Amino acid sequence: MSELKGTCIVGQSGGPTAVINSSILGVIRTALDADCITRVLGAAHGIKGVLDDKLYDMGVEDAAELELLKYTPSSALGSCRYKLADPDVDETDYKRILEIFKKYDVRYFFYNGGNDSMDTCNKISKYMQKVGYECRIMGVPKTIDNDLNGTDHCPGFGSAAKFIATTCMEVHRDAHVYDNGMITVIEIMGRHAGWLAGAAGLATWAGYGPDLIYLPEVDFDMDQFLKDVSDIYNRTGKCMVAVSEGIHYADGTFVSEAKTSATDGFGHAQLGGLATMLAEVVKKQTGAKVRGIELSLLQRCASHVASKTDIDEAFMAGKAAVEAAVSGVTDKMVAFQCTREGGKYTCQTVLQPLDIVANFEKKVPREWINAAGNGIEQPFVDYALPLIQGAPGTPKSSELPRFAALKKVFTTEIDQ
Amino acid sequence: MSELKGTCIVGQSGGPTAVINSSILGVIRTALDADCITRVLGAAHGIKGVLDDKLYDMGVEDAAELELLKYTPSSALGSCRYKLADPDVDETDYKRILEIFKKYDVRYFFYNGGNDSMDTCNKISKYMQKVGYECRIMGVPKTIDNDLNGTDHCPGFGSAAKFIATTCMEVHRDAHVYDNGMITVIEIMGRHAGWLAGAAGLATWAGYGPDLIYLPEVDFDMDQFLKDVSDIYNRTGKCMVAVSEGIHYADGTFVSEAKTSATDGFGHAQLGGLATMLAEVVKKQTGAKVRGIELSLLQRCASHVASKTDIDEAFMAGKAAVEAAVSGVTDKMVAFQCTREGGKYTCQTVLQPLDIVANFEKKVPREWINAAGNGIEQPFVDYALPLIQGAPGTPKSSELPRFAALKKVFTTEIDQ
Repeated sequence: MSELKGTCIVGQSGGPTAVINSSILGVIRTALDADCITRVLGAAHGIKGVLDDKLYDMGVEDAAELELLKYTPSSALGSCRYKLADPDVDETDYKRILEIFKKYDVRYFFYNGGNDSMDTCNKISKYMQKVGYECRIMGVPKTIDNDLNGTDHCPGFGSAAKFIATTCMEVHRDAHVYDNGMITVIEIMGRHAGWLAGAAGLATWAGYGPDLIYLPEVDFDMDQFLKDVSDIYNRTGKCMVAVSEGIHYADGTFVSEAKTSATDGFGHAQLGGLATMLAEVVKKQTGAKVRGIELSLLQRCASHVASKTDIDEAFMAGKAAVEAAVSGVTDKMVAFQCTREGGKYTCQTVLQPLDIVANFEKKVPREWINAAGNGIEQPFVDYALPLIQGAPGTPKSSELPRFAALKKVFTTEIDQ
Repeated sequence: MSELKGTCIVGQSGGPTAVINSSILGVIRTALDADCITRVLGAAHGIKGVLDDKLYDMGVEDAAELELLKYTPSSALGSCRYKLADPDVDETDYKRILEIFKKYDVRYFFYNGGNDSMDTCNKISKYMQKVGYECRIMGVPKTIDNDLNGTDHCPGFGSAAKFIATTCMEVHRDAHVYDNGMITVIEIMGRHAGWLAGAAGLATWAGYGPDLIYLPEVDFDMDQFLKDVSDIYNRTGKCMVAVSEGIHYADGTFVSEAKTSATDGFGHAQLGGLATMLAEVVKKQTGAKVRGIELSLLQRCASHVASKTDIDEAFMAGKAAVEAAVSGVTDKMVAFQCTREGGKYTCQTVLQPLDIVANFEKKVPREWINAAGNGIEQPFVDYALPLIQGAPGTPKSSELPRFAALKKVFTTEIDQ
């Protein structure tokens, strides 16, 4: 493969994670060091930054500040939920992207995101091939949801899982201090896959966690749920429940259906408010004191309790994407191939075709969920535990986290 | 003062904190080492454990497990919200307490709690004096609310403040990733005092925090609030707001009045749901995308991000209570006297009469809140910052916190 000289753009898309910036640091640092990459640009708010010609020159950033990206949660370049049209229907966006790519001689494009971002990569790549513009396009995975196809796990999941497990352990202690009855319902993110809700099971495995966990992989049955909760509550005077926001009835209707009218940019239903709703139902059934807790944004941005393994792997994914592209690869997403034999965990990067990744959602295997559909089995623990290891080592100032403060200078300001 | 030989009881009451067990560890360890204390008992669920003769023998616990109490959130002995009757009206409980004290020859009673617990101590002490039963009774402060009178601050506050500030910083990053408008409302505990809501201002001070903070010390004005939020949102496209659950209108009505019908055991209104309610009001006013986040129980149990200063001071308070009682003191609460001159923080224990502590609530000084009543001033930062210092150093197992696993053997099982 011949050397391809030119500019690189890196962008971030979709819901952020605690370690998403470690991935773009992996991209930026590796790209800045690559001889064939002449300039490294960061797209403000993902593909929208490309369309709007809002591109930061990453070369002017201070190296020490860039390093802090490892410990800075949430997309430092800004994110978007922008769905490119089907190019057979409307080429407008693609023409504009090509125009910007030509303007800056962009030959490398790295997109850091989940399912939808891989779809975006795939569409841009197909278009560039069609019009004969040479550009290497690589996906760098991220999603706390852990639902990307073709990879052992996704950067972002380990840290979210660690926050969820740790928090469930702490809330479990809190929910057990009084000798009167108490039922606690914790709502956890995860639209169609129960990886995050399952992570609450790590707390249970550690001795202080939910008695019951409901994942969207198993159809939800309200009567059975109320029976499960009542049985434990009547026996012990307490019950702690974790539910995925995406739990649904057998007909596909979300249990939190009151909220399904609003949708995000990709047409996904916006969920939430489920904990409160279930708490009310349970209260009516049992008469117990009930508390609903929604972990909300905290589970995707709690970098103070991130997994070092996750931070390091996120960086490794960004680095691998650039190295592969420089060596001639295009149209791939970096994925992880892991082994866990004998309790020893190894993780290496592999490359997966974008089109086997895009628009598929990887679910928790049914056999990792118990037969009753209200808890996880040991294989889930064995899978998830290696991903939460290691303290993040966040640099602090006055004991509060020290986030990366980037200059964020637009090319349009520099190139006048 | 003559040496008083006998048993000691330690109990915990009220809402737990991340470091409340560090205080009872201070009591237990010091009491176990004191020659005049013949036996150390832990009351199961506070004063209820005394009334029910449910007392754990702390002498049979493993020392290494006890040490883990420093890192174990939530009341390890169990808590209660039990209000003793006015002894002039009904002496039943007091007679029963005296009976139990005589049964075990209890001469030392340490109660770890907030305002209401100091009131409990005070009442028991007065009764024991009246009936001529010699017993030294000491209060060990705890409350995330930080509203106890007569002390610089309360154990529990520093750790809660650190969780709130850290979380606000992380949520701030998350709430700023998209380039479309977004308003975030974070609800923070604090019934009548705004110390915890004010702690969100540490995040703002650090560069990533709420634009607006509303404390219960200033009467809430919905029109002004909506104007404050709209102004910032219209100017910047984003607005992050922190509100204390206890904000109220000039007439004293809680803003979250829909929830004020339920009360806890002490007749306090049970608040909550305010973030969601305000988010809806703001959404109607601005049309913006709005998210309400309730920090809920997490803010009082997040021991993984506790302040080492807080852990150490909580221990010191328990230790000081026992040392004072052994030396002949009774009827006091351990308090903190601190200096912060020139940025150097010192903290020492002093003793305060129970009756100046009980049933008063210490508010945030008005001059520490800005003139507009929607933010904090530097003196608040100078006050709070020393209290959040130091990493907790939580021992871990598989990277999850390792909580104390006590045997909890009742005296009634041992003394057969």
